[in-house]
Amino acid sequence: MTFPIAAIILAAGKGTRMKSDTHKVLHPLAGRPMLLHLIDGVAALDPARTIVVVGAGREQVEAAVRPHGAETVHQAEQLGTGHAVRMAEDALAGFEGDVLVLFGDVPRVTADTLRRMLARLHAADAPATVALGFRPVNPAAYGRVIADADGRMDRIVEFKDASPEERAVTLCNSGLFAARAADLFDLLARIDNDNAAGEYYLPDIVAVAAADGRHSAVIEVAAAEVAGINSRGELAAVEADWQQARRAQAMADGATLIAPETVWFAYDTSLGRDVLIEPNVFFGPGVTIADNVTIHAFSHIEGATIARGVSVGPYARLRPGTVLGEGAKIGNFVETKKAVLGKGAKANHLSYLGDAEVGAGANIGAGTITCNYDGFLKYGTKIGDGAFIGSNSALVAPVAIGAGAIVGAGSVVTRDVEADALALTRGEQTSKAGWGARFRARMAARKAAK
Amino acid sequence: MTFPIAAIILAAGKGTRMKSDTHKVLHPLAGRPMLLHLIDGVAALDPARTIVVVGAGREQVEAAVRPHGAETVHQAEQLGTGHAVRMAEDALAGFEGDVLVLFGDVPRVTADTLRRMLARLHAADAPATVALGFRPVNPAAYGRVIADADGRMDRIVEFKDASPEERAVTLCNSGLFAARAADLFDLLARIDNDNAAGEYYLPDIVAVAAADGRHSAVIEVAAAEVAGINSRGELAAVEADWQQARRAQAMADGATLIAPETVWFAYDTSLGRDVLIEPNVFFGPGVTIADNVTIHAFSHIEGATIARGVSVGPYARLRPGTVLGEGAKIGNFVETKKAVLGKGAKANHLSYLGDAEVGAGANIGAGTITCNYDGFLKYGTKIGDGAFIGSNSALVAPVAIGAGAIVGAGSVVTRDVEADALALTRGEQTSKAGWGARFRARMAARKAAK
Amino acid sequence: MTFPIAAIILAAGKGTRMKSDTHKVLHPLAGRPMLLHLIDGVAALDPARTIVVVGAGREQVEAAVRPHGAETVHQAEQLGTGHAVRMAEDALAGFEGDVLVLFGDVPRVTADTLRRMLARLHAADAPATVALGFRPVNPAAYGRVIADADGRMDRIVEFKDASPEERAVTLCNSGLFAARAADLFDLLARIDNDNAAGEYYLPDIVAVAAADGRHSAVIEVAAAEVAGINSRGELAAVEADWQQARRAQAMADGATLIAPETVWFAYDTSLGRDVLIEPNVFFGPGVTIADNVTIHAFSHIEGATIARGVSVGPYARLRPGTVLGEGAKIGNFVETKKAVLGKGAKANHLSYLGDAEVGAGANIGAGTITCNYDGFLKYGTKIGDGAFIGSNSALVAPVAIGAGAIVGAGSVVTRDVEADALALTRGEQTSKAGWGARFRARMAARKAAK
Repeated sequence: MTFPIAAIILAAGKGTRMKSDTHKVLHPLAGRPMLLHLIDGVAALDPARTIVVVGAGREQVEAAVRPHGAETVHQAEQLGTGHAVRMAEDALAGFEGDVLVLFGDVPRVTADTLRRMLARLHAADAPATVALGFRPVNPAAYGRVIADADGRMDRIVEFKDASPEERAVTLCNSGLFAARAADLFDLLARIDNDNAAGEYYLPDIVAVAAADGRHSAVIEVAAAEVAGINSRGELAAVEADWQQARRAQAMADGATLIAPETVWFAYDTSLGRDVLIEPNVFFGPGVTIADNVTIHAFSHIEGATIARGVSVGPYARLRPGTVLGEGAKIGNFVETKKAVLGKGAKANHLSYLGDAEVGAGANIGAGTITCNYDGFLKYGTKIGDGAFIGSNSALVAPVAIGAGAIVGAGSVVTRDVEADALALTRGEQTSKAGWGARFRARMAARKAAK
Repeated sequence: MTFPIAAIILAAGKGTRMKSDTHKVLHPLAGRPMLLHLIDGVAALDPARTIVVVGAGREQVEAAVRPHGAETVHQAEQLGTGHAVRMAEDALAGFEGDVLVLFGDVPRVTADTLRRMLARLHAADAPATVALGFRPVNPAAYGRVIADADGRMDRIVEFKDASPEERAVTLCNSGLFAARAADLFDLLARIDNDNAAGEYYLPDIVAVAAADGRHSAVIEVAAAEVAGINSRGELAAVEADWQQARRAQAMADGATLIAPETVWFAYDTSLGRDVLIEPNVFFGPGVTIADNVTIHAFSHIEGATIARGVSVGPYARLRPGTVLGEGAKIGNFVETKKAVLGKGAKANHLSYLGDAEVGAGANIGAGTITCNYDGFLKYGTKIGDGAFIGSNSALVAPVAIGAGAIVGAGSVVTRDVEADALALTRGEQTSKAGWGARFRARMAARKAAK
Repeated sequence: MTFPIAAIILAAGKGTRMKSDTHKVLHPLAGRPMLLHLIDGVAALDPARTIVVVGAGREQVEAAVRPHGAETVHQAEQLGTGHAVRMAEDALAGFEGDVLVLFGDVPRVTADTLRRMLARLHAADAPATVALGFRPVNPAAYGRVIADADGRMDRIVEFKDASPEERAVTLCNSGLFAARAADLFDLLARIDNDNAAGEYYLPDIVAVAAADGRHSAVIEVAAAEVAGINSRGELAAVEADWQQARRAQAMADGATLIAPETVWFAYDTSLGRDVLIEPNVFFGPGVTIADNVTIHAFSHIEGATIARGVSVGPYARLRPGTVLGEGAKIGNFVETKKAVLGKGAKANHLSYLGDAEVGAGANIGAGTITCNYDGFLKYGTKIGDGAFIGSNSALVAPVAIGAGAIVGAGSVVTRDVEADALALTRGEQTSKAGWGARFRARMAARKAAK
């Protein structure tokens, strides 16, 4: 039996320590705002409701979460985590199910962990709340979870209130909770703010439940999964940890990373088998790579779909809308954007292919530019199967080069070229004998005169 | 007195955990298949015979080792390491000398270590076999080597058979062995497969020798030298270790690496003194660099010979066949392939030099392309001493630019240019007054109409 | 009350272990010779005199420090650190103030630490000398500082002379000292060279002062601050440590570094708030970046001033003299040098802008090259506000493109273009029907004939 699920995500703190105009929870992790990582995790549980508690900078947060089906409620004053959760009470009026309380700046908690919390809530001993504990390398000032061997507990003690024995406990409180909706808001209504900061603390619900004779429970996760992000340094640390795990997964799945620590994945990068990635490759969002692909060093790839047997880079920049057919090749100092290349097509050097379709087996010479922009609008270029574009050519879009056509080196193509034709715009080569020698003599004399 | 040497290299396991169509022992380490690292190490001992035991994927392995003078024998069934070594017995019929047993996926063992094993085999106490031991950070389930202070031993115990005292031993068995040929095959003939896996284990020869009243010996190496590679993660770890050692050596030899951890060497990279390497430089095989060379950041170099005083990069891609003369300069976004540049020649920006000879002191302008390919064949370009190629020029090969000649910017040179001449293919510059303003007005109106 | 300050910097040892033709103290750290880092630190104290003791390779050192107002004195023989300091005695004749003794190869000591040393020298207990101590991870063979809890001390014992109790002391001697000038030279005159190396050791002044009944003092700093550099390996380690601290500072100040360990700063890099730096960015000296700037991956930036809202890279190379106006954009494979771009100007792809002024809102098409060099001299290019340079154009300097002018793709502009005009140098496009098909047939036949 499963119960309907609601997630309450606290995201009212703007994050002063980030020193940013961007709200803390919108700073990206692996190319995606950290809050959306969390919403993705929640979405895997198919929640009835996802409610984000917003405060300072709420316009940014609302704009970010709305397309993902999350609602927002406003916490006007910052009166503590317990108070923040209560902001969702009205929105959840009539909701009978389980509530997960999450934090927008604790983005790496997995759907599997959330499922474990809910399962524990419905275990035979029926705890009133379920906390999520972790064991940090340095427990420092975290609240300690005082639990028995079965994870039953009556207390979470703040570090400053803890006895020496309690401080010796290494299981700490992450702040995340699960509880039945009715329990949660009933317990919250009874916590007080009788503390130095005058705030309502969410973990106090454990003590209120205990006063009712009801125990709570704790389950434990690895510390990395509940790492919080309060500064750019902590953001970089969580990013590094995420990347390290992703790289290990990529290798386990059959990709070779010569220098794993220099490959950056996005949250949604998909890799095939026998993919070779040289050092220093950056993946932005939206990349799918089939089997037997080689990504050479110093490549920067986002929004690209890459078929089997393709070779990319070094120094290739694939931008969104790039689709590379089987066995295609993008070489050094080549940029593609909204460019679809057919099977075996090649652009090996120093080119820009934007808003372009390139047919199977076509060869794009070094220095070729698709002139897709006139300062106002973008236009497309079509290059047919087996066409050969000579080096240093400019293809002024909109323009079409027919299948099997050849464009001579250095051409500026402004009109369509028919299939199998040769197009040229070349001026006649002229030569002025001795001019080079005379020029050098003149310049040398000028230098000497100085 | 030295004895003839034979090496038996076990390479029958394809390496399922690699998840690869490429045989495990052919995955490269520092740009060279790991098996060839091992064969190089063996070759330094001038062996009479090198025999690779192959199994699954043997065609790949045979093709890789044949050019290096190694023979192969086939192990059709995987019946254990002892069985694998016996596969070489017929091939070594009549061979009277020492045998080294090595593993294709343990590639970093050095010639020096192999010599030490052989020396120990012929020490005064004449051990029957010589094992190679190491002390891993985590001994885990490795077999333990039970030896006295002089490295004499009677037993290697599998972890599962070891007593608590034996498990406390930190010296572990790498699996490599040295033995006289006659001893080795005699001992192997007497080991059994009376174990859970039903396999013949090579280390059992120690116990068989002991039963004859003959002791064995062990010598010890650093754990990194006998690290085995069974997954891409382990491959990356061994690569990282190899690179770290190579970088330290480069610095000790007089190169500055601003960020050593971002420089990747190949197995055969050769560096001079006072070489400066900025962050993020990748060396493929076949690179030799003389003294006083600077390699700027983000360079990708393979198959290149670089003379004294040269400056390369940033963002230079030197491909095989590149030879740079003293004081030459290759700048940013420049690719060279089969390109020989004379003393002091320069190609500073955005160029492709393929199948080209460039004379001393020649200056290749930004955006110059050698058009070396017509879709079927490659052709050469010759540029004479002191020539000056104007920017954005295309040199359509085969073509020769004479010494001291000047090519005007934007030219497409299809015919040879004589020495000291000026060559141009430039169209006349025309101007349509007010056209720009009218175009903008038209486009703005079109936008407004939308 | 403050006293005049003199700094004596020992830099006589050339540094054999560097294996370099460059003097050890001139090897750069974060883009600046290490000796100048030290001189910068001293300069913050406004010293009356800065005296560098030079020896082997002194010409290099003298040339480097002279522009920074430092004097040099010559130590012809290498007779120890005590002897080296005495070389400065004549130069300081008549100087009545405090002397700091520093080492050219210990470059990271801060002005703050130097101030603390001087303050300690003038504390109420009036020590004769002030040493600088540190606690290395591995104290090894460093001299031990035998001090009481208040940092008062009578002895620095060489490791080889130390008792087991003294060796257990973890506070080690960095070698740096502060003392009043009169004291320093008086004490130095009385140390001897009665030791195995026959050298005069500076730390012996502590014992001489103690024999006079005068105590010394020690203050302590983090080990990283007094790390010495004797090899390229140690140089790389100090560089890594410097970079790590600088990256942490950048993040604390409000910059996002996706992969901090792949961003290299120079000693003087200045960053605004909400600056995003993707992986693999290298800063040379002279870079100032305003708020809300994005530096994409693989960029190489030196001598550039970047205004608010600019986007740079990936693969942008900004060279000295680059000034980017608000909201400007430099894209991939673009090099700038002495290039001033106005507000909102864009050069998105594959271009070289050298000795150029680009007006506000101008658009530089892909593959545009400013031809600024004729083999002898450099010339400037001016591009007016709102101008549009078509792709693959060559602008042959000196040349001016008027405001609002349009240059057609593939043009070679040799004469000025008036404002709002359209300039072209395009040849007529011609087409030879079927030529492509015939060429392929001919080449295929040739191949078949082989």
